[in-house]
Amino acid sequence: MKMTQAHIGVIGVGTMGSALALNFAEKGQDVALWNLELSAVDRLIASAGGLAARLQRCETLADLVAALPAPRAIVLMIPAGAPVDQTIAALRPLLSAGDTIIDGGNSDFRDTMIRTTTLEKAGLSYLGIGVSGGAEGARRGPSMMVGGTSSSYSRMAPILEAIAARYDGDPCVAHLGPDGAGHFVKTVHNGIEYADMQMIAEVYGMMRDGEGLAASDIAPVFRSWNRGPLESYLIEVTAEVLGTKDPQTGDDMVDLIVDQAGQKGTGRWTVIEALRMGQAVSIIEAAVGARVMSAQKSTRKRAARVLVPAGTDTMSPVAEHDLQSALIVGRVLAYAQGFEILAAGSKEFNWSLDFARIAEIWRAGCIIRSAMLDDIATAFRSPRPAGHLVLSDHFIPLLTTHIAGLRRVVSAAALKGLPVPALAAALSWFDMIRQERGTSDLIQAQRDYFGAHSFERVDADGSHHGPWHSG
Amino acid sequence: MKMTQAHIGVIGVGTMGSALALNFAEKGQDVALWNLELSAVDRLIASAGGLAARLQRCETLADLVAALPAPRAIVLMIPAGAPVDQTIAALRPLLSAGDTIIDGGNSDFRDTMIRTTTLEKAGLSYLGIGVSGGAEGARRGPSMMVGGTSSSYSRMAPILEAIAARYDGDPCVAHLGPDGAGHFVKTVHNGIEYADMQMIAEVYGMMRDGEGLAASDIAPVFRSWNRGPLESYLIEVTAEVLGTKDPQTGDDMVDLIVDQAGQKGTGRWTVIEALRMGQAVSIIEAAVGARVMSAQKSTRKRAARVLVPAGTDTMSPVAEHDLQSALIVGRVLAYAQGFEILAAGSKEFNWSLDFARIAEIWRAGCIIRSAMLDDIATAFRSPRPAGHLVLSDHFIPLLTTHIAGLRRVVSAAALKGLPVPALAAALSWFDMIRQERGTSDLIQAQRDYFGAHSFERVDADGSHHGPWHSG
Repeated sequence: MKMTQAHIGVIGVGTMGSALALNFAEKGQDVALWNLELSAVDRLIASAGGLAARLQRCETLADLVAALPAPRAIVLMIPAGAPVDQTIAALRPLLSAGDTIIDGGNSDFRDTMIRTTTLEKAGLSYLGIGVSGGAEGARRGPSMMVGGTSSSYSRMAPILEAIAARYDGDPCVAHLGPDGAGHFVKTVHNGIEYADMQMIAEVYGMMRDGEGLAASDIAPVFRSWNRGPLESYLIEVTAEVLGTKDPQTGDDMVDLIVDQAGQKGTGRWTVIEALRMGQAVSIIEAAVGARVMSAQKSTRKRAARVLVPAGTDTMSPVAEHDLQSALIVGRVLAYAQGFEILAAGSKEFNWSLDFARIAEIWRAGCIIRSAMLDDIATAFRSPRPAGHLVLSDHFIPLLTTHIAGLRRVVSAAALKGLPVPALAAALSWFDMIRQERGTSDLIQAQRDYFGAHSFERVDADGSHHGPWHSG
Repeated sequence: MKMTQAHIGVIGVGTMGSALALNFAEKGQDVALWNLELSAVDRLIASAGGLAARLQRCETLADLVAALPAPRAIVLMIPAGAPVDQTIAALRPLLSAGDTIIDGGNSDFRDTMIRTTTLEKAGLSYLGIGVSGGAEGARRGPSMMVGGTSSSYSRMAPILEAIAARYDGDPCVAHLGPDGAGHFVKTVHNGIEYADMQMIAEVYGMMRDGEGLAASDIAPVFRSWNRGPLESYLIEVTAEVLGTKDPQTGDDMVDLIVDQAGQKGTGRWTVIEALRMGQAVSIIEAAVGARVMSAQKSTRKRAARVLVPAGTDTMSPVAEHDLQSALIVGRVLAYAQGFEILAAGSKEFNWSLDFARIAEIWRAGCIIRSAMLDDIATAFRSPRPAGHLVLSDHFIPLLTTHIAGLRRVVSAAALKGLPVPALAAALSWFDMIRQERGTSDLIQAQRDYFGAHSFERVDADGSHHGPWHSG
């Protein structure tokens, strides 16, 4: 084939890689493409219309490298794990000092830390970029969370800013810190996404099973909420899918979908990292747990026949504005938990993450983009008591206004027998954080009683034991 | 010093090691003792009364080995991690083929797997034993969960059965499987312990903060519950500590204890392993999260001043029998989640765990011992639909009787502003498992909308995409 010079290489043309390649092409970049199955490259080029001229099929990795003048920039859009290491190993002998490899997949941030160190030592540049926004985002403008050295980022900044989503003209891409910082932040983004989706599903369930509404009746509720404090991509998507009919049957599409949620593991992974760092991430945990339970369809079927139903029909209806309030509070608290994980990671890995900037680059392009993120960015740029989002001047009034709605929803759901694990976790978290005197005095007493673990006293320094066995 | 022959060696005489050494001595075993700080051995012997004659202070590890005739049995009661590896390394050159090292500490079961393989290959025997019951249990009879080869266990079974707790004469010790099985089961035991303690603390909080009862008024409630389906060590301990006065001030002791719960990490560790294996362990997660929140005292203090209180005084009181029902259901479900983790571990590591036997050896000696475990053992020896504890003939009626109480407690707590994270998680789990049609149809629709993840249809095979963007 004819070897013309391209501006950037993309390895891997799955859903995300294809979309990103087209995005680059649209911004005037000539893109050299290689994929393990070359037919996927052919299909992409065949369907690329006017952009096809900027897409260049490479037969081999060596061809792809040869198509790029040094210093090269090569983006990997391939499955995380071994494929990334294998591709890097195959590329290395072909590259020159100063070339940049960019991992735009969902890599483990720890792998990214190791790869960055290894490759930067060898004179190459390496960036680990969390790319959010799904296929549509990658195509029209994703949100990109970048980890790597400042010099590596500087070289790539113009081309990344060109393809990024924009919020009021501000490109949704930022250099967040060294090595694994970008992939770490992306992981937490996905954890928040799990939580938000689960809480939306719970509120949908309250309307479907609690109020007996059809999907097509619920769609307009979400559509109206999308014009208020809940304005966001996920609420918009929810309104869209609930309002969609199946072309074959004419039924509401969602009613024909099996209620077993898949997961690619990033939510679970967020929770594991958070737990390891001693953080409480109950809302995200609940969302991960709900997906696990959804998969146990046969057990659920059986349990539905033998376990007693709650008296759903004796309950008064839940007001629509209470459901909206529940989602507002739940969303604030899920973001708050997410940013607490980011703070813990930033501290542990010495990344100096800029939380306001992270909120800003999440305002467009990514799945959790929402109007609230603009307020979060503002809150993070303002004084916050104890550094906590929920104690910021902006969020205290919002929580104060809407918390009663969340209370009524969780209370009603408990009596009606409708599961709201994430919303209930959000409420418990809220009530724990505003409880000056909690109940773990009893837990400390128990631990001292059976394990001689000792406790602190409210009226004296030092550690103490109870007089338990003398009594 | 004079080198007489001992029957068993104990390395490490902290709280647990000392108690276990005295237990061995009481059962007629001469115990050779060594500790990094020898003064601790001296203190133990000085306080051992009539048992001192059976305790032998060894100056060095070599002395301890020399005090034991081959084949030797040496129990490590030392901190998990590096100390265990260091002690094993120091012991190995001193030991002979056929000698047995027993790790009775809280080791990571993965470490135990590696150590077992290494040492058994070298001709030594190795047992990893989870020892539960706190200091009192170790002294009077612990519950012991043993992992290792059958031959290694057979050699040690008589002496372990001699010191174990007994339930109706049946010693609470069992060979549960190879290598890490014992330490794994102990970890899950601790996870269940976290959940049970947290739910008790929540119910205590409902009475203290919801009903305005003093600790001394709450103690008799727990004491009466200990004569019913909740009969258990933890309920007994709770009644004891709530009924204890501080000798200095005369106040209820628990009120003088700082409400910040410590944790040694086994609860968190259970959750991480469970998540890794794709299990939903929401109740244990909530308990771990509550301990994390309890530690954030300064944030809670601040939040208490600025976040709106709930209207606690407008609520009707929660009936005592509802609180009891909540704990009964919560306990069943925490056990059920725990046994689901055991099932997942057994499958992953090919351990063939005997769940009924595990329930049996938990009936006495360990912290979570309770009357309910006898029923659980029975349930596991009977047919269970879908293999699930909550679907067994014994537990369906119990859940049916008490679930309404849990509903009313969670509902009231939500409105009153009292945190019940573990009880709420239990209820959500119950309502998820008995929901034949859940709400993750919407989640699948969303994932397909933005990520082209596809979904299954209820009315057709294969995987499908929605007509979203055409609408």
